[in-house]
Formats: sequence, structure tokens, C-alpha cells
Amino acid sequence: MTARIRISEIFGPTVQGEGPLIGRPTVFVRTGGCDYRCAWCDTLYAVLPDYRDQWTLITPPDIMARVNELAGGQPILVSLSGGNPALQPLADLITLGRNHGHSFALETQGSIAQPWFADLDWLMLSPKPPSSETTTDLELVDACLAAAQARPRCVIKISIFDDADYDFARSVAARYPSLPVYLQVGNPSPLIAAGRTDTEQADEDDLARRLRWLIGKVVADRWFAATVLPQLHVLAWGNKRGV
Amino acid sequence: MTARIRISEIFGPTVQGEGPLIGRPTVFVRTGGCDYRCAWCDTLYAVLPDYRDQWTLITPPDIMARVNELAGGQPILVSLSGGNPALQPLADLITLGRNHGHSFALETQGSIAQPWFADLDWLMLSPKPPSSETTTDLELVDACLAAAQARPRCVIKISIFDDADYDFARSVAARYPSLPVYLQVGNPSPLIAAGRTDTEQADEDDLARRLRWLIGKVVADRWFAATVLPQLHVLAWGNKRGV
Repeated sequence: MTARIRISEIFGPTVQGEGPLIGRPTVFVRTGGCDYRCAWCDTLYAVLPDYRDQWTLITPPDIMARVNELAGGQPILVSLSGGNPALQPLADLITLGRNHGHSFALETQGSIAQPWFADLDWLMLSPKPPSSETTTDLELVDACLAAAQARPRCVIKISIFDDADYDFARSVAARYPSLPVYLQVGNPSPLIAAGRTDTEQADEDDLARRLRWLIGKVVADRWFAATVLPQLHVLAWGNKRGV
Repeated sequence: MTARIRISEIFGPTVQGEGPLIGRPTVFVRTGGCDYRCAWCDTLYAVLPDYRDQWTLITPPDIMARVNELAGGQPILVSLSGGNPALQPLADLITLGRNHGHSFALETQGSIAQPWFADLDWLMLSPKPPSSETTTDLELVDACLAAAQARPRCVIKISIFDDADYDFARSVAARYPSLPVYLQVGNPSPLIAAGRTDTEQADEDDLARRLRWLIGKVVADRWFAATVLPQLHVLAWGNKRGV
């Protein structure tokens, strides 16, 4: 029997808001459950056990039926997100989806390696910087890359809120010189909602300011291999997910 | 003697604001002069003969010296823009820059083909949609692609202001099924400045609204191979160029 997958939500098509596929139409398959608790997590409903009763165990054929319905039967990019989707048994879903012509991108913090990473089209590894208040073990990221066997396109994506995050990103980039690095402007909305920042609002001016600051850092350091991007869905929809 | 190049400005490093290289650090080499007069052109100072006395004829070694100075001697992406840079003799500049380790992306409307297109890393063809109030001959775009000989990565990028522009983009995409298509949210600031629109301002809300509209069109049509992007520099700096 095929292992069922713990799903928080399936939605789309919308566009991917982050990283190398920014702007690309996609259906999101968001799994429930996470081994991290990032301070600024913007999808706590897919992370915290408190929300477990909102998650559903679904078989790969049933997930794929929903994806196909949303995509109107057309092949599309499927974004596997979470929570940490690496906690789930996704091998059968990927095999099934590929038979329908879909492609698959998975985003994970890189704490858990799975053999089926090699079956992906894109593996976005997002080790968490100091502002997340988590501890990142880059040897686990190494293991994820080893599991991928250089078959998917692998990239590093790091959220940057402050200088310490930026320095962290520099050190991660130095460890993986062959991987493209995407620096993502941090979105403080979840921190503000939780009363954990003095900032009053995460408005567009704030986003523009953060974007200019990050571009300035990269340019000052002549870090010309990096790519600096905002979250497109935050720009389009505020802090909503884009549907 | 090496042919000199008509330069409007050389600036950077900043990040590329558009297309497949969005967010990538780059030095811009903007040439002066254009065979088009787009209604919403945001770089008229590099287009109109009125500004000709602000343009300078510079040799490729002198341009490269300036690029190297700006980039601090590091290899960087050089974005050749305009005006229409295809009007200029850029072959020697590209050869010289490649010896310094630089890579080259050129953006043009695709009205003039040059044999040195084949020496680029990226060729961004931006045929102009109806809202530009220009007439686009796609056979000239065909000639540009033929000149490129499939050596650079070629993409189509189209600014979208309205339904007619979107329909134009669909027809261009159908003509070039193998090329990635980037749909860029139109930036009405130049139209507003010229008193050619009723809109009062091109604020961030306007950008978000236009972005949501364009994403909605693409999703409704299930045009899943398209990529929808805003202009990153408009987001970061308003309508300024990003330095």
C-alpha cells in the first residue's frame, strides 16, 4: 500500500514567489509538520502540532487528482513545501506526477535527506540563518546534496533580516561554491503579528528599504554570484499566500 | 581602429531588474540612440536625439576600463541596454570583456540583427506590444534569433499593460514555442509623467494590482510556461535606475 502524505493544503495555480522559479505558475502542495520552529515562520499552520487536526493524510493518487483538477489537466510545476516536506514519503507522488508531465520543486531547510530528492527537478535548500533562532547543522545540508546525486538543479536560498544573517549566507555560499545562492529579503510580518518587533508594519516601503539594504550589501562586497530577490507573493498579496 | 560606441551611461553595480537575470548583480552599459519611440519608454534620455549631446563616443577599451573600475576588477554580468544597443558596434567590447571574465546580456526590441549576437551569453528579445504605439515586425525578431545561432540563451520579454498587450504576448509565444517567455508588469510612470494617463501615481499599490491582474490572466489561461515578474528596480527605487 502506498504511504499517505500529511497535507496542510493544496492550492493554486498561482506563481512561485521565491528563488530561481520566481514568477513561474505552480500548484503548491504544502505538507504538515516541521522539525524547526523559525522565529519568523509565515506558515505556522503547517508547522505547529496545534494545527494537526487541520492536516489530512492523503494518498498520492488523491493528491495528484487534486493537482490535476487545479491545473485543468495541464502539466505544471508542483511546488512541494511545508512545514518540512522532507518529513513525508513523497517518492510515489513524484513518480505519479511525472507520468502526468508535471515537474517538481521541493523546498526544505535541509535537515532531513531523502533518497527521492534525486527524483526532483529542483531542490531548494534553505538553511536557516541566526534570526530564525534555530540551530543549523550544515552537515545535514551536505547529506541532502549527496542524496540528490546532482540530478535535480540544486540551489541555496537564505532569508536575510540582518547583518548576522548576511554573514551566515556568505559562509554557506563559501561551503557550496558550485551552487547558485538566492538571498531573499526577510519578511517581518510574522514577527510583527507576534509582537516580537518594534516595527509597526511590514509595508511596501519597508520591503523596498530592506531590498535596497540587501542589494547594497551584496554590491559593497562584490558578491556578484548572488541573486537578491523579494518574495513576489508578499509584493502582490501582502502576507497572504497568493490565491 | 576599433569602432567607438555611443554611450548614454555606464553605471552599477546594481541588480538586474528584469527578466531571467532578475536580482543578479550587474553593471549596465547603456547605449544612446533608438529606432523606436515607445509611448511608455522610461529611458528617453537614451533614445531621443534631443539628448545626443549627453551621449559620448567611447572606445571598447575605455568602456571596459570603466566597467572594471565599477566592478572592482571582479568578473560581473554586463547588461547591454539602451536605447537599442543593437545599433552599436559591440563585437569588440564583448570580446574584450570576455577576456576579463565578464558575461554579457543584451536587451533589444529585436528590430536589428547583428552577427555578434552569437557572442552573447544572453539575448533578451523584447518585441513591443500595442500599448507602446510602435509597430513590431516579428520577421525582424526571427532574424535576430537566426543571428544568435542558438549560442546565447535567448528569451522573450514583453511588457504588459492591458489585454491587447497580453494577447500580443500570447501570439509571440506561439511563434517561438521553444523560447522562455517573461511577462513584465507594465510600469506606467513615464506615461503619468507625460500626462498621458488618468492615473495619478504609479505607487506600490498600483504595482501590486497590476501584478495580481497579470498573474490572474496567466492562471486563467493555464499559460504555465510563462513567467510573470515586476521590475525589481521600480520596486526598490521607484522609477529610478537603482544606483
